[in-house]
Amino acid sequence: MPTRVLAFDGDDTLWHNESRFNLTQAALRDLLHRHVPDADVDGHLFELEMQNLSLYGYGVKAFTLSMLETAIRLTDGRIPAADLQVILGWGKRMLTEPTELLDGVRETLLVASGRYSLLLITKGDLFDQESKLARSGLADLFSGVEILSDKTVDSYRSLLKRRGIEPGEFVMVGNSLRSDIAPVVALGARAVHIPYPVTWNHEHMPDESLPRSGWYRLGGIAELAALLETIDQPSEVHDGRTSTE
Amino acid sequence: MPTRVLAFDGDDTLWHNESRFNLTQAALRDLLHRHVPDADVDGHLFELEMQNLSLYGYGVKAFTLSMLETAIRLTDGRIPAADLQVILGWGKRMLTEPTELLDGVRETLLVASGRYSLLLITKGDLFDQESKLARSGLADLFSGVEILSDKTVDSYRSLLKRRGIEPGEFVMVGNSLRSDIAPVVALGARAVHIPYPVTWNHEHMPDESLPRSGWYRLGGIAELAALLETIDQPSEVHDGRTSTE
Repeated sequence: MPTRVLAFDGDDTLWHNESRFNLTQAALRDLLHRHVPDADVDGHLFELEMQNLSLYGYGVKAFTLSMLETAIRLTDGRIPAADLQVILGWGKRMLTEPTELLDGVRETLLVASGRYSLLLITKGDLFDQESKLARSGLADLFSGVEILSDKTVDSYRSLLKRRGIEPGEFVMVGNSLRSDIAPVVALGARAVHIPYPVTWNHEHMPDESLPRSGWYRLGGIAELAALLETIDQPSEVHDGRTSTE
Repeated sequence: MPTRVLAFDGDDTLWHNESRFNLTQAALRDLLHRHVPDADVDGHLFELEMQNLSLYGYGVKAFTLSMLETAIRLTDGRIPAADLQVILGWGKRMLTEPTELLDGVRETLLVASGRYSLLLITKGDLFDQESKLARSGLADLFSGVEILSDKTVDSYRSLLKRRGIEPGEFVMVGNSLRSDIAPVVALGARAVHIPYPVTWNHEHMPDESLPRSGWYRLGGIAELAALLETIDQPSEVHDGRTSTE
């Protein structure tokens, strides 16, 4: 079945995201080391983020709340409120920074939108993601936008059903094996992995845990058009028909 | 056109919400008055919430961040971090409390779901709202769930278009004149206002600013079934046909 619907993840697939969290986290490390020089800030923050995930979900507000809690706990409540106000300010800055597109994104989407129906499928904070999309200047290229609280086999299945999309005509493009590739391949749809230089611990997944087929890996989004032409080529081996060349 | 799709707001229409924010806000008042006895906590908090609305959107995480900022500012940074940790804990408690349905909700939805296609249309934090719906035990009664970042004429218009719903066959039920009634009536659909004992300042709107027709007010959700039968009765005056009675 030829590809009809091409879906993209947002964060770290279309625009920079994790690198910004990392910058803020480095600033938190510096700030807290002034109070507790030997503390494992990154380890404690990650642990708290995982504990809070079922309460807060994903996104900048959740991250800010977990940073504040880490700061208070690691200093045994000795951190001055003025420092916590600085952390609140970092969260606000992250929410207002311009959306910075990755290389080749605009050109690729412009061409692809003439050939496929484009969906944006992101997870995280509804308000934050809508705001980032609005600031990206890409909103008009998508025929639909789906903001999910999490990306699981079930959430993809219900999304495809709701939109009347067959797995065989659906291709998902994203940077996270855990969120963009594994659940999509599990449904019998195809996925394209485009790694981002930095991956949040929570999204880490070994290649070996994925099926061997049903997904592809590219070095950058600029290679996508060529890949899609290849995978939609009728395969002589697979369906027995003669290629129309 | 007879009603086909009956949509409900969630917070303070199906389940208690604002009263919980009020309880937490009262606790914040007490806590901060120990540091600054004469401070106008409610006034400052509301002002900050309005300033932060375009950054944070609605919901418990946004409320928690604004409470923390209020506490730091009103005490000029003198509040101990331990008190801020208490505030963080209030936010977490709000996110885990059981969803407490309003009187008559389950019965009304059970009957209505046999007659209409039911939608839940809430605004606020995606993660929080999905979690509340899951805990409500009502999810199976809805044919669709829409969580919007805000409820405006535009967001209702695109929702109706996306779902192929005519304004004439759509009735929205909710507690907020600003979010559930005014934008719906502006689109030519009908709306039913069921006030909740407490209304957040931001949602306040004088009756006089609404059109005179197109919406109804009930004392409670138990009166809804009877109202819907009445408004879908073919009107002899309006369409000239004879009632089948």
